[in-house]
Amino acid sequence: MSEIQSGRREITGYSNPTVKYLRSLREKKHRKASGKFLAEGLRLLTDARESGHIPETLVLSSARDPHPLLAELERDVLAHGGDVIETSSDILTKITGKSNPQAVAGMFAEFDTSLAKLDRTRANIWLVAQALRDPGNLGTMLRTCDAVGAGGLILIDDCADPFSVEAVRASMGALFTVGVARASWDEFLPWLRSGDGQLVAASLRDAVPYRGAPYSAPCFVLVGNESQGLPEDYEAACDLRVTMPMRGRADSLNASVAGAVLAYEVLAALKV
Amino acid sequence: MSEIQSGRREITGYSNPTVKYLRSLREKKHRKASGKFLAEGLRLLTDARESGHIPETLVLSSARDPHPLLAELERDVLAHGGDVIETSSDILTKITGKSNPQAVAGMFAEFDTSLAKLDRTRANIWLVAQALRDPGNLGTMLRTCDAVGAGGLILIDDCADPFSVEAVRASMGALFTVGVARASWDEFLPWLRSGDGQLVAASLRDAVPYRGAPYSAPCFVLVGNESQGLPEDYEAACDLRVTMPMRGRADSLNASVAGAVLAYEVLAALKV
Repeated sequence: MSEIQSGRREITGYSNPTVKYLRSLREKKHRKASGKFLAEGLRLLTDARESGHIPETLVLSSARDPHPLLAELERDVLAHGGDVIETSSDILTKITGKSNPQAVAGMFAEFDTSLAKLDRTRANIWLVAQALRDPGNLGTMLRTCDAVGAGGLILIDDCADPFSVEAVRASMGALFTVGVARASWDEFLPWLRSGDGQLVAASLRDAVPYRGAPYSAPCFVLVGNESQGLPEDYEAACDLRVTMPMRGRADSLNASVAGAVLAYEVLAALKV
Repeated sequence: MSEIQSGRREITGYSNPTVKYLRSLREKKHRKASGKFLAEGLRLLTDARESGHIPETLVLSSARDPHPLLAELERDVLAHGGDVIETSSDILTKITGKSNPQAVAGMFAEFDTSLAKLDRTRANIWLVAQALRDPGNLGTMLRTCDAVGAGGLILIDDCADPFSVEAVRASMGALFTVGVARASWDEFLPWLRSGDGQLVAASLRDAVPYRGAPYSAPCFVLVGNESQGLPEDYEAACDLRVTMPMRGRADSLNASVAGAVLAYEVLAALKV
């Protein structure tokens, strides 16, 4: 795929190579090859900008309403040497794949998601997800991180891509405002043990009630894969295993729900 | 679309009218016209069966592994005059639209979702969602209902369809085990006020902290639309408005997450 030129211009054709390039970023292989990803919506792009993330390319619908935040965004993109493209609402829909499109989308460079970039001292709560496969759950967990003041989300083993359109959308901008790291379990555990940190698993095995459990900061709340839960040896490596009441037929919650219920409990317990 | 014949048979062709009929149930207009919906997976269909819901048609992949629960399911479907269809894994994938298909799917008659069918005395917690548009959120809330022992989910105004494949899937079978009702706000409020019930809104306006708030049973936990939240007059009609800490940039949580965090708080507060 071709690189994108810089400056301000208009695109009217569906088969324009820039449209194809941007659209290709909905697929993981193209994101991986280019190191770029898409985010959409003025609110989300404003959160990104205010967190220091300026899109390399900004795509505006010609049907947009004027907005001062949009004008600031355009100015900042051009000031950073980026590209501002005006196009039809239909082409914007084609790029983002959303039937009810926002008036603006941006292309960003993917962030460094190495564990080494995380500073565990900057927050008392962290979420950790193992083999989380659903990008919606991933985005929702990022959003929960923002809400509880968590440092960020650490993705263990083979998780969904945090830079997918679905994850970015579900994060409601939190991808830009909280930390995100990716690591294997064998990288994560030594990193965790190299400093302070209590690893807490949502678990059914050898677990204490989640309410009133002895949480301590920094607390790393670990939830497992949507269908398999956590591997037994991962749970065994945790400092604390807690369980939530299950009054019905099922023995588990949605992964992002379990993470949020636990994270709010930790927030209350730590009184941070 | 044609009706389905009863008994046991094999289907090998993609263009078979029964395949087309079942596949059509992925679309709301066809579900509405036929009053039927699809659910997939042995675990989910077993939960359904144990809750008294037998599929009218059972579709089995010829690549399935034998399982005693599957044999019981087949037997019950035939005993109830239903239809058992054996087909290829590819055709089953075509019917359910899931790339990683289960070995079994069922077609059920939709339930009566009128408010009048709900017995509020059967549970101390109920979830209420207003204009919930995402079927995944809807299914997740049903699953949370099961986990907290809630009576069910009441859908207010224009919500996603609880019988959509996505909602059924996300509910992990809870659609069959907890109550679900649909009503307009103008139907719901008089129904609520015709008996006991505390209406609690997740809110930012005139709200008390959700932790330690004076919850009382039966408690109806109301969450609003994913992007708009609750209309102001709906909030004003609530008996209690509670708010959760928001430590980050955003002022809201994912709707199903907010509902779950509140529902678990109510569960703990009511000590039920």
